[in-house]
Amino acid sequence: MKQYLKHHEWQIIEEGFDPHLHRVSESIFSLGNGRMGQRANFEETYSGDTHQGTYVAGIYYPDKTRVGWWKNGYPEYFAKVLNAPSWIGIGFNFEGQELDLAHASVEKFVRVLDMKQGLLTRSFEATLPDGKKIAVQAQRFCSMADGEVGAIRYALTPINFSGTVKIKLSIDADVANKDSNYDEKFWDRVYEESQMGWAVVNAQTKKTQFQVCTGMEYKIEIDGQRVGGKVFTHNKEKYADNIVEITLVQGKELVVYKYAAVLSSENHPKEKLVKHCLAKVDEASKKGFATLLQDHVAKWNRTWQDCDITIEGDVAAQQGIRFNIFQLMQTYTGEDERLNIGPKGFTGEKYGGSTYWDTEAYCLPFYLGTTNPAVARNLLIYRYKHLPKAIENAKKLGFKNGAAFYPFVTMNGEECHNEWEITFEEIHRTSAMAYAMRDYIDYTGDKNYWIDYGLEVLIGISRFWSQRVNWSGDKNRYVILGVTGPNEYENNVNNNWYTNYLCAWTLRFTMEAIDYVKKNASDKLVSLFSKITFNEATEVARWKDIAEKMYYPEDKTRGVFLQQDGFLDKELIPTKDLPAEDRPLNQKWSWDRILRSCFIKQADVLQCMYLFEDDFTQDQIKRNFDFYEPMTVHESSLSPCVHVILASKLGYEDKAYEMYLRTSRLDLDDYNNDTEDGCHITSMAGTWMSVVKGFGGMRVRQGQLHFNPFIPGQWKSYSFRIEFRGRVLKVKVSQAQTEVLLESGEPLEIIVNNKPAKIS
Amino acid sequence: MKQYLKHHEWQIIEEGFDPHLHRVSESIFSLGNGRMGQRANFEETYSGDTHQGTYVAGIYYPDKTRVGWWKNGYPEYFAKVLNAPSWIGIGFNFEGQELDLAHASVEKFVRVLDMKQGLLTRSFEATLPDGKKIAVQAQRFCSMADGEVGAIRYALTPINFSGTVKIKLSIDADVANKDSNYDEKFWDRVYEESQMGWAVVNAQTKKTQFQVCTGMEYKIEIDGQRVGGKVFTHNKEKYADNIVEITLVQGKELVVYKYAAVLSSENHPKEKLVKHCLAKVDEASKKGFATLLQDHVAKWNRTWQDCDITIEGDVAAQQGIRFNIFQLMQTYTGEDERLNIGPKGFTGEKYGGSTYWDTEAYCLPFYLGTTNPAVARNLLIYRYKHLPKAIENAKKLGFKNGAAFYPFVTMNGEECHNEWEITFEEIHRTSAMAYAMRDYIDYTGDKNYWIDYGLEVLIGISRFWSQRVNWSGDKNRYVILGVTGPNEYENNVNNNWYTNYLCAWTLRFTMEAIDYVKKNASDKLVSLFSKITFNEATEVARWKDIAEKMYYPEDKTRGVFLQQDGFLDKELIPTKDLPAEDRPLNQKWSWDRILRSCFIKQADVLQCMYLFEDDFTQDQIKRNFDFYEPMTVHESSLSPCVHVILASKLGYEDKAYEMYLRTSRLDLDDYNNDTEDGCHITSMAGTWMSVVKGFGGMRVRQGQLHFNPFIPGQWKSYSFRIEFRGRVLKVKVSQAQTEVLLESGEPLEIIVNNKPAKIS
Repeated sequence: MKQYLKHHEWQIIEEGFDPHLHRVSESIFSLGNGRMGQRANFEETYSGDTHQGTYVAGIYYPDKTRVGWWKNGYPEYFAKVLNAPSWIGIGFNFEGQELDLAHASVEKFVRVLDMKQGLLTRSFEATLPDGKKIAVQAQRFCSMADGEVGAIRYALTPINFSGTVKIKLSIDADVANKDSNYDEKFWDRVYEESQMGWAVVNAQTKKTQFQVCTGMEYKIEIDGQRVGGKVFTHNKEKYADNIVEITLVQGKELVVYKYAAVLSSENHPKEKLVKHCLAKVDEASKKGFATLLQDHVAKWNRTWQDCDITIEGDVAAQQGIRFNIFQLMQTYTGEDERLNIGPKGFTGEKYGGSTYWDTEAYCLPFYLGTTNPAVARNLLIYRYKHLPKAIENAKKLGFKNGAAFYPFVTMNGEECHNEWEITFEEIHRTSAMAYAMRDYIDYTGDKNYWIDYGLEVLIGISRFWSQRVNWSGDKNRYVILGVTGPNEYENNVNNNWYTNYLCAWTLRFTMEAIDYVKKNASDKLVSLFSKITFNEATEVARWKDIAEKMYYPEDKTRGVFLQQDGFLDKELIPTKDLPAEDRPLNQKWSWDRILRSCFIKQADVLQCMYLFEDDFTQDQIKRNFDFYEPMTVHESSLSPCVHVILASKLGYEDKAYEMYLRTSRLDLDDYNNDTEDGCHITSMAGTWMSVVKGFGGMRVRQGQLHFNPFIPGQWKSYSFRIEFRGRVLKVKVSQAQTEVLLESGEPLEIIVNNKPAKIS
Repeated sequence: MKQYLKHHEWQIIEEGFDPHLHRVSESIFSLGNGRMGQRANFEETYSGDTHQGTYVAGIYYPDKTRVGWWKNGYPEYFAKVLNAPSWIGIGFNFEGQELDLAHASVEKFVRVLDMKQGLLTRSFEATLPDGKKIAVQAQRFCSMADGEVGAIRYALTPINFSGTVKIKLSIDADVANKDSNYDEKFWDRVYEESQMGWAVVNAQTKKTQFQVCTGMEYKIEIDGQRVGGKVFTHNKEKYADNIVEITLVQGKELVVYKYAAVLSSENHPKEKLVKHCLAKVDEASKKGFATLLQDHVAKWNRTWQDCDITIEGDVAAQQGIRFNIFQLMQTYTGEDERLNIGPKGFTGEKYGGSTYWDTEAYCLPFYLGTTNPAVARNLLIYRYKHLPKAIENAKKLGFKNGAAFYPFVTMNGEECHNEWEITFEEIHRTSAMAYAMRDYIDYTGDKNYWIDYGLEVLIGISRFWSQRVNWSGDKNRYVILGVTGPNEYENNVNNNWYTNYLCAWTLRFTMEAIDYVKKNASDKLVSLFSKITFNEATEVARWKDIAEKMYYPEDKTRGVFLQQDGFLDKELIPTKDLPAEDRPLNQKWSWDRILRSCFIKQADVLQCMYLFEDDFTQDQIKRNFDFYEPMTVHESSLSPCVHVILASKLGYEDKAYEMYLRTSRLDLDDYNNDTEDGCHITSMAGTWMSVVKGFGGMRVRQGQLHFNPFIPGQWKSYSFRIEFRGRVLKVKVSQAQTEVLLESGEPLEIIVNNKPAKIS
């Protein structure tokens, strides 16, 4: 845990430059706009420890799998988010002396991420080795108004000298992924050109042959007057620049504006990529920094208008929630159904593939609640398009008859993870696709989604379950052997309660969908059944049998469900008895020790109770929470938010608040000591849920909105907005009262604190 | 399965050259002498598919671990058997045209491994692309009489031409391991020299800095007359040769004798290595091929005298058992306590490290029965010397107080395997060290081994178990969670019956050893306890409690022990219902499917009954055999021999014979389709056990030899020798009778078919 950032309602502020924290800050101060993103690397040369990262949505590389011991069924490659050509480079050389904060005395260093505007500002004074002193203020943003544009304003004032400076404005595609399995670079050259005032580099990924074309223009001013200087142009393989020689006058501010356009072949024909790129950067340059920024900020204003959460009386909590919302909105705008939400977004490249079940289980509710339903629908359709690959994936593991096994990690629908206990066994994820549909339908009422897309996916998933269970003669029940539940601190267990429950629910949900489509679009049902050669009589009969005769491990004495068979053989020890120096377990204990301990990374019985809350009594939930929560170490970023929601429901206010801080400030305070690899983007949606579903007690039941709010004692008030079936509601909770206001749309009956209320 | 070798009692014979089988033959026709070994690569250039392999005992390289996803506790490196400098190269170039069987028309190709003499002979006629035709007979051996010497006789007759030939006699240390994790070469240069008539290359391994110095001399004759020819000497980094230009006369036989000496810094001071090597090769060359061969064959004669098994009436079975004994004796002679028995011996480099629990569980009984007890004792002492590393290894995983966890794979005592389900969980192996002691003591009566070595090891192992079990409040018993038994087709299971049994037995055995040492060397006991700060009262009390209250999974209805908790949840299907195209499962099924199936790689309940036969009734063994055997796929080379022994005991003669053929011809007939990687050396000891303990029914009980022979219907008779407490017994079993003869040593009372018999 690190607490070096200033608390502020709208800004993330770092004061003073500490090279040891630089990688963490590079993650936290990242910028993005859904199409592209950029870690908070310095524009000028920095020879210290840094993780340079520029990313372009949808651009990936299938890196050959690296494994110690091959297991049958492993994928051939691991699709990786690609470190893309860098457009931010602006180097300064003062008569042979490079500006490099690793070799300068730095004062008054301040880094500010203004979340309201989406603007990164860095200012400092630096004394170079020969005594030259400069003051710098650098600002940049990735335009939310135009996803292909980035802009930089870099202002530099020579404080104690006059003289010449060479300014190098570059585009560099000779970049590498930190996590390359075999130390390869993933980009091939296509085209470079450098002319006075602009440069362009087009590069192509190996194997996948995506092209990314990056262009730049720039303007330089001194004291507000445009200056030209001597310009030298260079280009070499995967690189192009302009070097501009300018005479500086002591005390006069030099301002460099650099405009970049980043275009990918996913959105433009390859043969027009360079042309379109140059046109785009030219357009940006003509608009100029101020206008571009204005458009960008206007877009952010609208976004905040929809999805801001305010918290009065607790700046750390306020900053935390805004940071989470800010990062989510930077990562995925929902406009492109080919895209998804990577675990690190545009803030790092760890965990490679872009799509995990995090999307369905955590991000979907956020987008449902804060934007229009088309965004959530795009996320569902993304998986619909991957259905053929999910069927292939199941086939590779020996399943037949159109069984669909969604991958644990993917870019294009193919599995690319290679740990057998996860890849093959963490099978609950395939039902996350079904649950997402339930969430979407609950929220929007749009059952017709089943007709054209949903049912086909559900049948594929149910066919998987139908083959994955087996009959236990011993138990006289269906069992599910050899799985890993959401609690990844248990591997290859039998009858994980969460998984068994989800399986049976999925089968029932699929049968419900069949009935609906039968009643509402019977012709489409017939043609679907024929397309996928579905034998309704026999297949549904088996599903029914499985759903009825599923085995659920249980401890009747304690009145709790058992995470899996044999859980009670463990020594049951509360986490509070763990020595502090043993935490986090995943860094301190050997893997086998973790596995045979009772400690839980993410409590999956509780996860299931959160997902299917209405299937259980308050008492059942309480008993299970009281049993599992004390053994939960929350070493998954996806864990605390679920505990906030359940603790809120159970009236455990302190626990709810403790867990809320943990989830909302996970990256800002670097709880897990890994923010330097990038931020935990998908779990940020969990933070939003913590407030809205946790404190706000928001639920959708039978198409109706419910609120059961409580407010932590530390807070004066909090508020959030909810988009729901064409309305926008604002919920404001203070210590004294709860207000729900209809900001737009038709009047609506909702339930507040279990009582109906009409809002209009 | 491939059946291309001719059956013969003393020889392995391949007729005709099939490049697709070449790698398999390279493994099968391998030669070794305990100190060095050589795959059956061609002496001359071969540009076709080949796996070149020269190996020197004890020489390894710690290759940096390659892993997909790191787990805490993994070792940093994997110690690998090293492909060593090659000494066999003899190239022939006929006026620019290389002799290369990949580019020649080959006739009359015959490869013969004469196991009686330990001699590899290859003969063929080859027509080169330009029509030149030659006849070749190449012979070689690795001297059993002098482990540092190898010799080649290469005879070549030009059939249809006269002309010059350039003969290249080389030493090549620029070799690579096929399984190098990062495509590195592991040898550094030290010294090369090439002079007329000889060459030497000294090379050093990276990191481990072993030196291997390889020298050669040669003689060339035509028609029995020594010839000189023009000699060109060359050397470059890690390589040296002589090229000799000779005029060939049509029809006249050219014979090249090449003598090699291979010395390692494990046996010579580094600074004298080159000198000793040159002296050794000079000595060999002076002796000449015929004398060296004579000494070598004499040594083999003595070996066969001791350990041959004859089978009359079944050539395939006879060839099989001799091949197994031959390979074992080539691999490990027991003279050097620093060495052990690698899973591939000198026939390949797969599975890297040299020492597995195979040594204790399979090889030890073979060496006990066929050689003097010092060999088995050396194998025990090898592990005694590794005790500090075993303690370190346990510490890394979180164990304390001198707990000893022996590695799954090792070279120097450190663990070097990296699959969590094996490295951390296949914990039964640590008790293999205890069982080996029991075997050794049963056999030799030498309980004093406990005093100086054995007890310290046993206490370390028992301390491990004492911490590895935990108390289950639910079962009111001690349980062992998260293990992999010998059946590696189940991972991370709870209460593997074999493991639980072995744990409790080890604790009791350790207590027995303490009592013995207390009575017989109480002063040594006191100093040992003080050395390892052993608290007898509390530690032994806990052991006793664990041994008494251990949990053993059981199915009382069927009267069988359960492989692990939850085994009965599986669908119990016999292997005979598996489609042929699904076999072997480990090549056809995904890993998860194997894990959740009932199919058994190696039946571990039965393994335990084999190890502790006298703890169970015949009826219990029968019920468990009848339950588990039908589900066993024998995809471990260590599996069938145990089934031979139990099936023999139970009178299942057909099953015993079927399993015997499978184990004894595993490599000759390439049952598992992997002999090209090398032969399954350690399981060959199991083949010996199949005959002696299986068919012969040999047991040692309370220091007394028992025989309960049966003879397969296909055989006329079989015989084997047993070394036992200073005697040599010969057992001959025919369809009519069993004879046990005392060949040397004092008279002895033994038990034959459960009746006492005095032999003298």
